[in-house]
Amino acid sequence: MADALDPVLNDIDRDLDNSLERLFAWLRIPSISTDSAYAGHCREAAQWLEGNLTALGFETSVEETSLHPVVLAHRPKPGAPHVLFYGHYDVQPVDPLNLWTTPPFEPRIDEMDGTKRIVARGASDDKGQVMTFVEACRAHLAMNGDLPVGVTILIEGAEENGSQGLPEWVEANRDRLKADVALVCDTGMWDRETPQITTSLRGLAYYEVKVTCADRDLHSGFFGGAAANPIHVLSRIIADLHDTEGRVTLPGFYDGVREPPPELLEQWRGLGLTPEKFLGPIGLREPAGERGRLPIELIQSRPACDANGIIGGYTGEGTKTVIASQASAKVSFRLVDEQDPEQLSKTFEAFVRARVPADCSVEVICYKGSRAVALPYDMPQLAAAQAALSAEWGRAAVAVGAGGSIPIVGDFKRILGLDTLLIGFGLDDDRIHSPNEKYELTSFHKGTRSWARILSALAQA
Amino acid sequence: MADALDPVLNDIDRDLDNSLERLFAWLRIPSISTDSAYAGHCREAAQWLEGNLTALGFETSVEETSLHPVVLAHRPKPGAPHVLFYGHYDVQPVDPLNLWTTPPFEPRIDEMDGTKRIVARGASDDKGQVMTFVEACRAHLAMNGDLPVGVTILIEGAEENGSQGLPEWVEANRDRLKADVALVCDTGMWDRETPQITTSLRGLAYYEVKVTCADRDLHSGFFGGAAANPIHVLSRIIADLHDTEGRVTLPGFYDGVREPPPELLEQWRGLGLTPEKFLGPIGLREPAGERGRLPIELIQSRPACDANGIIGGYTGEGTKTVIASQASAKVSFRLVDEQDPEQLSKTFEAFVRARVPADCSVEVICYKGSRAVALPYDMPQLAAAQAALSAEWGRAAVAVGAGGSIPIVGDFKRILGLDTLLIGFGLDDDRIHSPNEKYELTSFHKGTRSWARILSALAQA
Repeated sequence: MADALDPVLNDIDRDLDNSLERLFAWLRIPSISTDSAYAGHCREAAQWLEGNLTALGFETSVEETSLHPVVLAHRPKPGAPHVLFYGHYDVQPVDPLNLWTTPPFEPRIDEMDGTKRIVARGASDDKGQVMTFVEACRAHLAMNGDLPVGVTILIEGAEENGSQGLPEWVEANRDRLKADVALVCDTGMWDRETPQITTSLRGLAYYEVKVTCADRDLHSGFFGGAAANPIHVLSRIIADLHDTEGRVTLPGFYDGVREPPPELLEQWRGLGLTPEKFLGPIGLREPAGERGRLPIELIQSRPACDANGIIGGYTGEGTKTVIASQASAKVSFRLVDEQDPEQLSKTFEAFVRARVPADCSVEVICYKGSRAVALPYDMPQLAAAQAALSAEWGRAAVAVGAGGSIPIVGDFKRILGLDTLLIGFGLDDDRIHSPNEKYELTSFHKGTRSWARILSALAQA
Repeated sequence: MADALDPVLNDIDRDLDNSLERLFAWLRIPSISTDSAYAGHCREAAQWLEGNLTALGFETSVEETSLHPVVLAHRPKPGAPHVLFYGHYDVQPVDPLNLWTTPPFEPRIDEMDGTKRIVARGASDDKGQVMTFVEACRAHLAMNGDLPVGVTILIEGAEENGSQGLPEWVEANRDRLKADVALVCDTGMWDRETPQITTSLRGLAYYEVKVTCADRDLHSGFFGGAAANPIHVLSRIIADLHDTEGRVTLPGFYDGVREPPPELLEQWRGLGLTPEKFLGPIGLREPAGERGRLPIELIQSRPACDANGIIGGYTGEGTKTVIASQASAKVSFRLVDEQDPEQLSKTFEAFVRARVPADCSVEVICYKGSRAVALPYDMPQLAAAQAALSAEWGRAAVAVGAGGSIPIVGDFKRILGLDTLLIGFGLDDDRIHSPNEKYELTSFHKGTRSWARILSALAQA
């Protein structure tokens, strides 16, 4: 027998201020997973959520992994479908701190052009999104004393650090993660009015390259023109990674990359997402990657390579006539279709080493790599969730691919045999990973209502 | 009538510990000129020297420039030749601080392989070197009540920051700087046993390049492959600056560069400075610049280009999937012969702008540029100083060119019509501009004795 949905939606509307209070408490914990100095805060964020879910009636525990702990919560419902919800409590670093208008871990509501926004690190990625699901469960439980489906919630703390330790933990706990479908709330809307289910994700391979030349910093007057310069070596490596057509030059890099079918390309053209529309909001206008392709094609169906950071030599005020001993860069690849991160690691390291002079040295650190994933278009839960989203937003939910990578989705498929519905309420201008990250109040409020509807819809799917 | 020299040399030997005490007091002042946070310490270093020189009997003043003040000290000697001595009291920044064995501004004597060394930032560059001259004057005055020649001492505070403000100050004070020859103590020995007079210096042109792409940091998953990446743009610029033969690719860069005459090249070959000998001590073995040239040729008679620093994107621990909004690099050129820094600035900026995408922007900051300078081989003071150095070290002093640049030498020639004798006692492994900078006790002690002899010798030249 289906639980009543309307009282649930009304309760969400009525309790919005309290929902925000709970989210704010969580946002105040600086759970930065990539910096070991914040490890204690990561645990604190896990424990806060454990308390919250236990109070709602979930059987909850904080469990160790090789990096930060995960939060696992169960509420079974015999005879009903069972869903596994995934999100993460860790957040990105906050630098450059001076570009934040207010401190990143002091959440607040501001209003811009009549739009109310939750501003804080993690507001959109991913604490705000996780809480849309948690608050939807809360409302169902408050109104009906039960959930429409059985629910397992798995919230990790190392997503921004390559989900280190999570696959091993999932592997070891597969029996506790049984479900009919996985739900992930870490993606965005198509636009402010149109909900979206993300049906494919690019994979990610992330490397750090450290080049060492002389065994000390040198005076560029004494040695300039005679001693190797690691910034030159690194610049050559990064410059050589792309040809003049914007293609990645690594041998075999495009092996396993499929061209999108003509009808999909036609569909994408119909969306009218011109370079100006896609890049204009961030102050650009010309696609920088492979020539002759649509922006949506570039970020959904094509692989890419970006240097995510570089440092070497003197970077302070003024001048210093130095030739650095060492320089390093972080370089990552977005992968599609059948591209293999393990093969890529070998090719990339060989490419790098071939460009380092014989009397210099290089270290290539390989952070976790993940393959691209794609959803079967005919799964019944997809149709059910699409209908629920369309009902909430008054507009047909679109099903498209996305450029970002969420490694756990591939792990769920590989380890648990689960397909994942990627549903989220972030917007492209949420500035996730940037200063002044925000999550719009509408995303939070209607996102919570959306999950309430989806939970009910999945009971029938 | 010549003053007696032997008592002066004996006094230097006897007073060495006190000389070191005075030097240490000066080294304790962190007079970093490139960081405005240390401006007060720069002034303090100038005032310390003013007090020291006044006590010796110089008429001394601290005078303002557009950046840090200079110290000017006079002791005329009617009828005798007059020398203008130049040095600098400012020092390089100390980063990376964690690589220093002891704090950079707590000078100490340590002993390594039986060699005593003064360890501190500025020990060699340039406070230790300046004090060899000051202590030589002190000993002459103590023993003879007078100096062999008239002396003007000019010690600036912005040498490590392109001598900002100094040329204008020299121009405005040319009448107070009249002399027969200039002496500069900011260079090194040929090797541990062989003194050297540097007869030519490369010029320097120093730039900062800031590339801005999107108006904010971006998530590389959402935008990777579609949005311009400033690290890629900057890497392309730096990589393009050299061709595969190690030559600088800027149009017209080698205009005004002369090939060394065959007899000089032959002389250089005779020195036996192989790539292994030159680069081995810093952990390298293959010259990185123009192919097919001797190391000594590369650093003395050829121009060069080095990226001195680069920064952009995420440079912390772990990973961050970001495409930076901005990246910047410091790039400098060593110039020889008739190369013109003003022309270079135009060529370099055009080269940079041609490599920046139309929807991105770039700022090219030009720090002060200086031309190369060379000494006439037949000047009488050169022969006199060479003889004095040879007498002190028991080995013929060599006269060669150097790779580094001391802009003031060109200014002395242009503004005051003065040729400069560049004499210094630094060693190649002094780690100037690096952590654990040192000046050997022998450099300090025999350097002081050398100046005492040179002052006497110049009285006859």
